Formats: sequence, C-alpha cells, structure tokens
Amino acid sequence: MKEKFTVTPWEVSGLVDYDKLIERFGTQKIDNDLLERIKKLARDSHFLLDNGFFFSHRDLDKALESYEKGDGFYLYTGRGPSGDMHIGHLIPFVFTKWLQEKFNANLYIQITDDEKFFFKDDAKFEEIEKYAEDNILDIAAIGFDPEKTFIFRDSEYLGKMYPIVMRIAKKVNFSNVRAVFGFKNETNIGMIFFPAIQMAPCFFEKKICLIPAAIDQDPYWRVARDIAPKLGYPKTAAIHSKFLPSLQGPEIKMSASLKETAIYLSDDPKTVKEKIMKYAFSGGQPTIKEHREKGGNPEIDISYQWLSIFFEPDQKKLKKIYDDYKSGKLLTGELKQILIDKINDFLENHRKQKEKAAKLIDKFKYNGNLAKKMWNL
Amino acid sequence: MKEKFTVTPWEVSGLVDYDKLIERFGTQKIDNDLLERIKKLARDSHFLLDNGFFFSHRDLDKALESYEKGDGFYLYTGRGPSGDMHIGHLIPFVFTKWLQEKFNANLYIQITDDEKFFFKDDAKFEEIEKYAEDNILDIAAIGFDPEKTFIFRDSEYLGKMYPIVMRIAKKVNFSNVRAVFGFKNETNIGMIFFPAIQMAPCFFEKKICLIPAAIDQDPYWRVARDIAPKLGYPKTAAIHSKFLPSLQGPEIKMSASLKETAIYLSDDPKTVKEKIMKYAFSGGQPTIKEHREKGGNPEIDISYQWLSIFFEPDQKKLKKIYDDYKSGKLLTGELKQILIDKINDFLENHRKQKEKAAKLIDKFKYNGNLAKKMWNL
Repeated sequence: MKEKFTVTPWEVSGLVDYDKLIERFGTQKIDNDLLERIKKLARDSHFLLDNGFFFSHRDLDKALESYEKGDGFYLYTGRGPSGDMHIGHLIPFVFTKWLQEKFNANLYIQITDDEKFFFKDDAKFEEIEKYAEDNILDIAAIGFDPEKTFIFRDSEYLGKMYPIVMRIAKKVNFSNVRAVFGFKNETNIGMIFFPAIQMAPCFFEKKICLIPAAIDQDPYWRVARDIAPKLGYPKTAAIHSKFLPSLQGPEIKMSASLKETAIYLSDDPKTVKEKIMKYAFSGGQPTIKEHREKGGNPEIDISYQWLSIFFEPDQKKLKKIYDDYKSGKLLTGELKQILIDKINDFLENHRKQKEKAAKLIDKFKYNGNLAKKMWNL
Repeated sequence: MKEKFTVTPWEVSGLVDYDKLIERFGTQKIDNDLLERIKKLARDSHFLLDNGFFFSHRDLDKALESYEKGDGFYLYTGRGPSGDMHIGHLIPFVFTKWLQEKFNANLYIQITDDEKFFFKDDAKFEEIEKYAEDNILDIAAIGFDPEKTFIFRDSEYLGKMYPIVMRIAKKVNFSNVRAVFGFKNETNIGMIFFPAIQMAPCFFEKKICLIPAAIDQDPYWRVARDIAPKLGYPKTAAIHSKFLPSLQGPEIKMSASLKETAIYLSDDPKTVKEKIMKYAFSGGQPTIKEHREKGGNPEIDISYQWLSIFFEPDQKKLKKIYDDYKSGKLLTGELKQILIDKINDFLENHRKQKEKAAKLIDKFKYNGNLAKKMWNL
C-alpha cells in the first residue's frame, strides 16, 4: 500500500495520489465542462490541459466568467531560484505563456530569492543571486509578451510591494502559518514573514488573479483566499499542475543535489543521452527476447510518461508509441531514443531562445509597459 | 511597596526604578569617569547627561574609543509615528543633535510607520502616514545636519534595506522574539518580522552604531548585539534615557489617548497653561498658609521635575527654585507659571523651526549627501 505521500511547498515525497490530494487540499478537479469552456474562450486547446497534467483548480470558473464579462483576469506565477532549472520547472511556464497569449493577460513572475535564502540553512545570497539571474533568462526564453510581463526579484522589488505586504502580514498570525506551513518555534522570522511576500502579487490588480503553478504551492493561495475579502479583493484563483516524475520514477524526487534525477536546461546532448539511457526507469522486460514476447509496461515507464506529459503532444503518435511498446514491437532502447531526440531538440531550441531573450530582460524587469508601471507605483 | 513596573518597547507602566532596570536589562550605568570622557572628547557638556536623564549605556566606552582612534561612530535613532509628538518624544532628539554636532557623526532616523500599522489593531495606514510626515517635520525642526542625516519611513525605504534585513531575519527565530518581545501565537507575522527591520540600521555602516533612545527600546539592541558578530559587524552601542514623567505623575503613562497627560508640540499657550495649572501633579500644600509654613516637596512635584529634566538647564537657577519651593517661599502656582513660560517659549521657538524645516525635508529624505548615498545603494 503506497498511500503515504507528502506535498508541501518545501517537500514533495512518496507516490502522489492526485485524486486524494484534491480531497486533502479541498480543490476542484478540472472536469470536461470546464475544459470545453476554456477551449471555447481560448479558441484553442493545450496539450497540458488535454492530458490532465493541469488537473485541479480553485475558482478557475470565476476567472473565466470574469473574462466572458470583459473584466478579464491577470496571471501570476513564480520561481524559487535555488539552483539551475530542470525541465519539470519549465513546464508550468510553457502553459502560462499559452494562457497569456489566449486571454491577453498581464503576467507577474515573482523570483523568490529571499525565500531561498531564508529556507536553506547554508545558502549564500551571492549564489542565490547568480541562480536568480540565470533562471530569469530561462524563463524569459519561453517567449512571454515583454510589454505585459513583469519579472521581479523579491530582494529588489520588496520596497514597492511593501504597502500591500504590510496589509497582508497584519491579517496573518503565527498560529495561521504554523497550521498551514508547519512552522515551528525554531523557524526563522524571515520564513515566518515570507508567506506575506509570496501572497502579495495575488493583490497586484483589483481583478481576479489566476495562478498557474504546481499544486504544492496551493497552501499560499488558500491563505490568500481567506484574507482577500478582508482586504477588499476578489479571491485568488489557481490552476494546478501535477509534478513531472523524476527520471528514476515518481517516488524519487527530482533534486538539485542528485543531478541524475532530472534533465537540466543546461544539459548537453551527450549528458541527456547518458542520463536517459542509464537512469530513466523502464517498464521494459529484462531481455529483448522477453520484451518481444511479453511487451513493456508504458504505465510505469518514465520515458513514456515524459513523452505523454510534455515531449509528444501529438496524441496519435503517442498512441502508436504506447501500443508498440505494450506489444513488444518497440524496445526500451528505442523508446528511450525517441525521448532523447525530443529532449535534445527541445533544449537546443530553448538555448537559442535563451540567448535571444537576453536582450529582452530589461523590458521584463524594468522598462516594458507593465514593468515600468510597477516600478512607478 | 511600589516595585512592580513594566518596561517593554510597547508598554511602560508603574514607577520605574532605574537602578533595578539597569540590573534587569544588564546595561551599564553612565558613571563619572565616562561622563568626564564624553566631556573631554566633545569639548562641551550637555545638561541631559549632567542631570542623569541619559543614565545607562551599552558599549558607549567602545564608541568613544573608536572616536579617539579616528574611526568614529554613527548615530541611529527613530520614532514610531502613532500620533502627534509630545515633549517627551522630542527630548532624545535634542540630545542626539548635540552628539551629531560634537562628534561629527552621520545620523539615521527611522520612522517605523510599518510597526505602528502592525501593532495597533485599528490603525489605518493613511492616518499613520499623516502622522509620519508631521512627526518628520517636528524632528527636522531640531536642526540636524541635512547633509549628514537621513530620515526615512520604513514603508518607503524597506526595498533598499531588504538585503540587510534578510540577513538579520535569517539569524532570529520565533523562540528568540517570543522570549525578548513576548510575542504569542496570535501575534501577526508583521510584528514577528518587524524586529529585523528595526535592527537593520544597526548595520548601515561597518563602524560602531551608537543609539541614543529611551531605554524601553533596548531589547532590540540586545538582539542586534547578539547577531552582530555573526554578520561580521561590531556590536551596537546604546545610550539610554529615562522617561519624562507624565503631567499627573510618574506612574501615569503619557498617552496620546489621554491628551491631558502630556504637552503636545502643537499645544497653544492657553492649552499649555490650562494643562499645567489643572493637571501637573503638585508637591505643594493644600493651602497657601500651610505651604508658607511647611514648604513644598520638589522631589514629587512634576513641574519641578520637568524643569530639572529639560526646561531649566541652568543648575544655579534650578537650585534656587528647589530651595524656594522647599522653604515655602515659592508657591505652587508660581512654580507652575515658571514652567508654563518655559514651555511656551520652547514651543513658540519649536514651531518657528518647524516651519523653517519644511524646506529641508527633501534633503533629509532624498537628496542631502547621506540621503542620496542611501537611496543609491
């Protein structure tokens, strides 16, 4: 029985049962009606919705309603710059870009360099700063609208946010954050205060804020929703993704300290090939002969899962891979090679985009239309 | 037995025994040797030192030593803008100006508008802002050096302070602030974080920071001193004042909600006369006849105490008042009139200086030499 799993903003472990998590967190499943409604309004579909990777929400229906009425919504997501980014980190940004484009929405991207400093005992701020700037380049490479996207580091922007941070902090006490985030008496006062900072962008505009992010961040939005009416704002909406399973399997957390659990955006083609061939958990049989006879199990095969979640949006092609692997026609090495090629194509393109994005950073951070407005508050 | 008294940054009550307080807080008495050393270095004396109103310290000797060596020290003090300022609030600033002048020191004045918002349940920030700006004018009226003094409101300046605030916050946990400040589970996370903000100016320069302030603020400096070595800074030094007793007597706290307990800087001459005549606790006898016979008790007379603490720096004149009141030659009404005239002279001059100071505010806040440097960090 593998029912024990933990999902908090700082720890995801065990085999996550996403239906149970919806119950635990008290969120809503994205059902077919809602999916159809998004497609209708977006006049497009997105594979990360179709394949159920974004699977849960809070008040997404209200955000869409506001869009239908012409009031719209704005988007907010973020990144804790504790190290180099891997592919799992990037996926929510890919979906966020689609939302921005289809719903013509302002987007705020918070880089929580302060959080990482508070939460990692041995973190040097100079190191976090280096990661922050490189992570921003990776994020900018996704291709957001530089006039409608504001990327900011907390350590740089807190001054401008502080009036709203103050209003939030006054409404949240130690009991609240202890209950929601598990803080203890030994928790440093930076960590205790930090939720007020992560919640601040939920109140950057008076319209509904929609947050596309992995579901582990949901506790913040729960608190933000509780206090929103007290501050005179609409309740924050969220659309939650699952987690990309790590190379070794869904129960092994991707970790910056175990480089072989993930594919980093900076991994070169040779490294990618080595990592997938050597570490990607396989649903295949021990020998080719056996595999041809019994077939593989795509359900537990990480290469197949990565293809189905992100790297093969084409459902027809995916079905063929599934069937061929299950029948034994497709060998594990061949399946892995399909993924390796997809990843290396993706990363090659990403690195090109990242280079191009360098000259847009000033727009995202300081002088695009939205950035300028936020600095002139 | 009146031994019970409370002194915290948010509450001062009971009859304060200052010798006991030195013991409780673990500070040092300012002794004659130290007084002489200050006089020698300042080439001047100050009545607020001579009369023992500034009575306690931490590492003042080290600050002086650093000055003797040519490394100097800098000054930091502040004001929580919860209402109009009264005379008790102004006294430490008067002494601070003398220190700045005599020791040619940079001075940072923190206006903790965030603190007042976090700590007062019903406070509207708009109201606190109004008080903050008026308090700044009152403070500027004291005549600090506009090129060497930086006056800042936390809500405006936190962005620039945040890197050092972060470093402080990481070194302080909930247990620490609970023990030092008495925070509880119900304490809002703004209050819990706030000590890191009030401590930040202790680390604005690498030299010794000397804080002239009333002794109730000492708990902050105790924590600052604990973490200073961990951050690579010298320990914060402090010079502590007593509290100006309220009009009704030393056991009644001056309070913005009881306007008759204090003389506000905005009180007009008629109000001053009324308040002193009606409310100033008297050491005189019930009838003139009795007073002439038995004499009054200057030790418990608030008018005499106010003269001795602040309004009559001339020790000869003060001694004559003391003797005449004790002998019965000086009546209570006459003693009160001496104080009324002194206060009204002081306030008339203060209001003139306040008007003149208005045009220096931009220098103190934004473009004097020190302010400019602090905004360009």
